[in-house]
Amino acid sequence: MIVVLKKDPDEGQLNNLTNWLQGLGISIHRSEGEQSLILGLVGDTSVVDMELIRSLDIVEDVKRIQEPYKNANRKFHPMDSVIDVSGIKIGGGHFQIIAGPCSVETEAQMCGVAADVKAAGATILRGGAFKPRTSPYSFQGLGGNGIKLLLEAAKQSGMPVVTEIMDISQLKYFDDVDMIQVGARNMQNFELLKEMGHTGKPILLKRGLANTIEELLMSVEYIMAGGNENVVLCERGIRTFETATRNTLDISAVPVLKKKTHLPVIVDPSHASGRYDLVKPLALAATAAGCDGLMIEVHNDPQHALCDGAQSLTPKKFADVAKAVFALRPFAMTSEELNAQ
Amino acid sequence: MIVVLKKDPDEGQLNNLTNWLQGLGISIHRSEGEQSLILGLVGDTSVVDMELIRSLDIVEDVKRIQEPYKNANRKFHPMDSVIDVSGIKIGGGHFQIIAGPCSVETEAQMCGVAADVKAAGATILRGGAFKPRTSPYSFQGLGGNGIKLLLEAAKQSGMPVVTEIMDISQLKYFDDVDMIQVGARNMQNFELLKEMGHTGKPILLKRGLANTIEELLMSVEYIMAGGNENVVLCERGIRTFETATRNTLDISAVPVLKKKTHLPVIVDPSHASGRYDLVKPLALAATAAGCDGLMIEVHNDPQHALCDGAQSLTPKKFADVAKAVFALRPFAMTSEELNAQ
Amino acid sequence: MIVVLKKDPDEGQLNNLTNWLQGLGISIHRSEGEQSLILGLVGDTSVVDMELIRSLDIVEDVKRIQEPYKNANRKFHPMDSVIDVSGIKIGGGHFQIIAGPCSVETEAQMCGVAADVKAAGATILRGGAFKPRTSPYSFQGLGGNGIKLLLEAAKQSGMPVVTEIMDISQLKYFDDVDMIQVGARNMQNFELLKEMGHTGKPILLKRGLANTIEELLMSVEYIMAGGNENVVLCERGIRTFETATRNTLDISAVPVLKKKTHLPVIVDPSHASGRYDLVKPLALAATAAGCDGLMIEVHNDPQHALCDGAQSLTPKKFADVAKAVFALRPFAMTSEELNAQ
Amino acid sequence: MIVVLKKDPDEGQLNNLTNWLQGLGISIHRSEGEQSLILGLVGDTSVVDMELIRSLDIVEDVKRIQEPYKNANRKFHPMDSVIDVSGIKIGGGHFQIIAGPCSVETEAQMCGVAADVKAAGATILRGGAFKPRTSPYSFQGLGGNGIKLLLEAAKQSGMPVVTEIMDISQLKYFDDVDMIQVGARNMQNFELLKEMGHTGKPILLKRGLANTIEELLMSVEYIMAGGNENVVLCERGIRTFETATRNTLDISAVPVLKKKTHLPVIVDPSHASGRYDLVKPLALAATAAGCDGLMIEVHNDPQHALCDGAQSLTPKKFADVAKAVFALRPFAMTSEELNAQ
Repeated sequence: MIVVLKKDPDEGQLNNLTNWLQGLGISIHRSEGEQSLILGLVGDTSVVDMELIRSLDIVEDVKRIQEPYKNANRKFHPMDSVIDVSGIKIGGGHFQIIAGPCSVETEAQMCGVAADVKAAGATILRGGAFKPRTSPYSFQGLGGNGIKLLLEAAKQSGMPVVTEIMDISQLKYFDDVDMIQVGARNMQNFELLKEMGHTGKPILLKRGLANTIEELLMSVEYIMAGGNENVVLCERGIRTFETATRNTLDISAVPVLKKKTHLPVIVDPSHASGRYDLVKPLALAATAAGCDGLMIEVHNDPQHALCDGAQSLTPKKFADVAKAVFALRPFAMTSEELNAQ
Repeated sequence: MIVVLKKDPDEGQLNNLTNWLQGLGISIHRSEGEQSLILGLVGDTSVVDMELIRSLDIVEDVKRIQEPYKNANRKFHPMDSVIDVSGIKIGGGHFQIIAGPCSVETEAQMCGVAADVKAAGATILRGGAFKPRTSPYSFQGLGGNGIKLLLEAAKQSGMPVVTEIMDISQLKYFDDVDMIQVGARNMQNFELLKEMGHTGKPILLKRGLANTIEELLMSVEYIMAGGNENVVLCERGIRTFETATRNTLDISAVPVLKKKTHLPVIVDPSHASGRYDLVKPLALAATAAGCDGLMIEVHNDPQHALCDGAQSLTPKKFADVAKAVFALRPFAMTSEELNAQ
Repeated sequence: MIVVLKKDPDEGQLNNLTNWLQGLGISIHRSEGEQSLILGLVGDTSVVDMELIRSLDIVEDVKRIQEPYKNANRKFHPMDSVIDVSGIKIGGGHFQIIAGPCSVETEAQMCGVAADVKAAGATILRGGAFKPRTSPYSFQGLGGNGIKLLLEAAKQSGMPVVTEIMDISQLKYFDDVDMIQVGARNMQNFELLKEMGHTGKPILLKRGLANTIEELLMSVEYIMAGGNENVVLCERGIRTFETATRNTLDISAVPVLKKKTHLPVIVDPSHASGRYDLVKPLALAATAAGCDGLMIEVHNDPQHALCDGAQSLTPKKFADVAKAVFALRPFAMTSEELNAQ
Repeated sequence: MIVVLKKDPDEGQLNNLTNWLQGLGISIHRSEGEQSLILGLVGDTSVVDMELIRSLDIVEDVKRIQEPYKNANRKFHPMDSVIDVSGIKIGGGHFQIIAGPCSVETEAQMCGVAADVKAAGATILRGGAFKPRTSPYSFQGLGGNGIKLLLEAAKQSGMPVVTEIMDISQLKYFDDVDMIQVGARNMQNFELLKEMGHTGKPILLKRGLANTIEELLMSVEYIMAGGNENVVLCERGIRTFETATRNTLDISAVPVLKKKTHLPVIVDPSHASGRYDLVKPLALAATAAGCDGLMIEVHNDPQHALCDGAQSLTPKKFADVAKAVFALRPFAMTSEELNAQ
């Protein structure tokens, strides 16, 4: 961490600052310039509050030169982590497609979709039981019953499931769920993240609409600091000025994340674009860029889906996408290549 | 709502659509163009899922022409709502300044700040007990004990308090809190919003970093649909490409919101800018634009605040800001003027 | 175009509006709702100024239902356009890699890079002679002499060249240039665009940092309306809140553009990311998504490039990228597939 | 400037770097940490290309600690600059309202509006003769004839004029124009900026839609480096995800700019919002925040304006806005206050 001081800083305040920092186990290198005195802080600066230092009268600016996250940092854990979802491995060369409907509606729907996506190559089943909807007048999901239907479909198809939790109070329904999804709107719901740190289950953490890559890694830190190292990250589009797509898929986040963290990174082209006709090109792009998996919405009757129909594929179209993805994957970026540069 | 159909739509699918819409009580006006057939939907279209219609094969586009929110809509409630926070009124010409530290630290700190800000004209005391922090290694707030200290300071100073809730499970600590704040990161924590709808207490709902004005009003709808009409909105900056300020205060949100809704709108210049030296100009700007109040961070020793020190004012600087705000307010935009245009 | 009128519009003003529209050859369909009267405008509405109508007292809102661009619109020209750059074809299945240094520096540099990139599969040579730099104190390019050096390298290597124009007054230097680039900062330099419409040369138009896809197509319209149909579009990243990359590559723009227009679309991963270590994953992603070519910065000594060194590849790394791109391309999205959905 | 080196940097490369820097007159302070070696560069680092250094193999990161602009920097010129527009002073406590129509249409229109806005308190007349329009099919302005009509109105009303230049080739029409406007789309048209540096006339430079405050100041540097110190800056809204307003007025840019530069800063609420009904609240807000003037669109018949009618005020409404602005101004932020904090 670099602290740039204002010209002619008050000596008393400067002493207070250096004493306080030394008390935290930080050593300090001074570098005197014509216009400013610069302090280089050496040691474990993750314990130092940048904003606090920035607020001091004698300080002009503070700049961090090390990442503020540890557990997820590839620097301290160079090998890819492999996350095991009830026998299905993600990361370290293992590529998986998670598929299923936006919302769980009926047992027939879930079992039908599950069979279809499995036949096409998907290995984990998704389906929403608790649904975050912008409007209170929109369908809010089947709740606990939805999870039961999802688990029934999982059992019949022999696939593990992932489904979204929206609040700690819903955790009681997730006992048999294989992987818990924390959605984009909850990426900084810190109480929920802390709770996820105590579950031991694999967590699928989606990037928030307006959150930076660094903030995503800090949210992972909440989960990992609680003792749960089974985290998969998901890029699903960020909010920008462009309106042709619902969100803007930040494809660069895939290689950037793969370099910064050892955790697996998957991409959700359905939510990123909000348009079923863009799922295939975005799925191929994400695969090429080196992601560890995809999450795709599939509905057996998208025209009557209770939510997000516009971004769902039919099982037939999904099969076409999956086939193209598997064909392209041998030519995609690998984790090794990304980290060798 | 306007549905633009593709050229030569399949008649069977078109019949299905019109029958389904009529079943929802919607009447349909057809308008035939050279390139497209247009359906005008008349009736209560808030029950119609735009995305579902957009996903139909025969549909080119769907456009909403009415706002999707009702309870907060000024069209159905032209007079300003006045929200009463334990005797302190906000809205309808009543302007209030909420002030206090970012985090509750000690009783001495809280009581000191409370006395200072009250003397300077603040009427509601703020202080964080549960703190949303990007890093798990940062100070997380004093929790339930923090609320006790806050209430003690409130009692001594004779002011009502507002403090933030981060999770439903914390609600038990809020029995004696006068107004509950839902923070920016939780603006779309729908389970928490629903719970707020059942409390009856005034809710201070902050706009999310990347949420549109319309989404803010939809989140209000979650609270109001639960039966709680005591909602105050707070603009606190949005995330943009500009890095000179922590966020970009969307000053236009003040007049836009005041025209769209009858609920009071306040502004938080401290979080919007993240810089104490911008609080005064932004507070004056927000007042001039017609907001119903301000929320300002004040700390008796900002250089040692446990969080967000960089954006806190000293009590002395706060008194200067408050004085300037009160002097300017007679020349500010009024709700009547905004709605007369 | 749909015009939504306010409740109980003034009849005189309504007559004025409908007469004016009918005078423009537009026919009008009325659709009466409970809350509003809606006018559907049928005919060539590209001549109607939306903003003018929106400003009328009796109008609540105006919505466009047809694209405001014509010449570039795939609806009126379903087949891919193929642009010929001195014998090198782009579009309609022809995929090209444009490569070369950010800035032309010396003849040795240009000829060296040209030979290297040609050997690796590039077919068009790039190099900047007029350089848009944020700071007036940064290197501004060699100007007319730079173009001479570029053309010399082109002659020796047998490749056509593309180079950027920054102002109409520079056009005299472009006589022998094969393709003229209009950079991101000039995407809405309308006088320059008009001039490009009169050159007859192929134009490479880069998307502006903060311009929508629709605005890009409107800028194309300036060129095509002048009689020049030889336009290639280039996605090169947009400005967002994310700071891990210089810009955010909008990968979705590739399929969206390929559906909206018949013109070729290429991608510049070097400028999009500003980081040489992201060029390969982004180049693969763009290729997979169905672009018609790539534009990549290559420098024989990137560590001494006079500008933008951080995003340049060595010739050796470029050869690796090109090889991977060519290997992946048979598995990429095609224009036919994108337009069949 | 701070250069953070990678662990165990190659000594040969390190020597090359330090020799090169010393050759530029920079002295270097080394600061050795556990994880990295840090170089503090002392001297005139505005000549050092950050990107070039960042691209070196041995470099982890580079951070600037001084602003890269000089002429506009308040640090080197603490007193407010006052810009004289043919006798009308802006800055240093002088507050002016610039008003007039978006486009010059007829002599009658211009003279009528000029008389009206002058009577209401405006002191500089605006009107567009060369119009940047997104669509080539929209009205493009009257060009040279428009400037003649504008100057005629100026003469009759006794006010200086400001009007926009779009291309260097138009400069011949600007001989009698008092102040030249460089619009948002041309903020980084560097050739035009350089030319403005040679005119000696006052320049009104508008911030680009997606340009940071620092980039705006770098563009000013292009003008000032050419010898023209008469520059007025204009905040006119930035592009964000919010769609309720055409752009998002970045009100914080007013105090931030007033602290960073000695040049006057004005605000254009008409273009920022694109809505006439938001002009008054935004004009009041900007005034309160401490700007040195406003630029407001006024049309005597806004419903028939050839462009941007939706954001124009009638002369009567403008008079109401101007009156409110003048009444509020004694209570607004001053330049001294902003720079005392």
